[in-house]
Amino acid sequence: MEQRLTFITLGVANLKESIGFYENNFGWKPSAMSNEHLIVYELNGLFLSLYSRNALAHDALVNPDGSGFKGFTLAHNVHSEREVDDLVNHLRNKGVKVVKEPQKVFWGGYSSYVSDPDGNLWEIAFNPYLKLE
Amino acid sequence: MEQRLTFITLGVANLKESIGFYENNFGWKPSAMSNEHLIVYELNGLFLSLYSRNALAHDALVNPDGSGFKGFTLAHNVHSEREVDDLVNHLRNKGVKVVKEPQKVFWGGYSSYVSDPDGNLWEIAFNPYLKLE
Repeated sequence: MEQRLTFITLGVANLKESIGFYENNFGWKPSAMSNEHLIVYELNGLFLSLYSRNALAHDALVNPDGSGFKGFTLAHNVHSEREVDDLVNHLRNKGVKVVKEPQKVFWGGYSSYVSDPDGNLWEIAFNPYLKLE
Repeated sequence: MEQRLTFITLGVANLKESIGFYENNFGWKPSAMSNEHLIVYELNGLFLSLYSRNALAHDALVNPDGSGFKGFTLAHNVHSEREVDDLVNHLRNKGVKVVKEPQKVFWGGYSSYVSDPDGNLWEIAFNPYLKLE
């Protein structure tokens, strides 16, 4: 099994609100693969999709009920501490909820967390040990 | 903000069990970035990490409590329906829980879902409209 992740799909409560978040706040552009039920953003070698939470659970044949911490985080790495600060301030000015203010972290990096409308946590991080393309 | 996802980190209940799942069942190899608390798999242009669920919540300054459907899925796409069947049977033989048997789906593809030890859902999918590299 190749070490490959093709899609990560977020099951969202309100598709319109989530589209607003990813397109107005993050400034991302949907791919031509998108339709009225599934929005797809092409990232670096993989796709992020937004889909109704209930429909997603139904597709996987699992119960859609769930609450609290979802047990995962997504990270968007940038090139410097300054870039973390600037991006988090930009998002804050757009009305995005900042869950953790930018700060130095024990592993030697500098990071912050923001939340999307469904509480999906995006870490905005600078990792001095990671070479970003 | 570039359309980039650098890391997806799964907060897991038992790191050893999760390592067993990803390394014995999926057959993935950890990257040199890994240490005893954080296991990192290098995928196609991004990294998947395993980290203690409580430590992950703590890092994001959120409450670790949560249950039920996590509201996201991960997809591993392959090149044919046959490859979906073969991979899912391989995983089943390794003891992996198959949540949804391989089947044709409404959007024109063919897919199955399996679960990791924390209930993270991996879709094993063939999408005839997607060109895999």
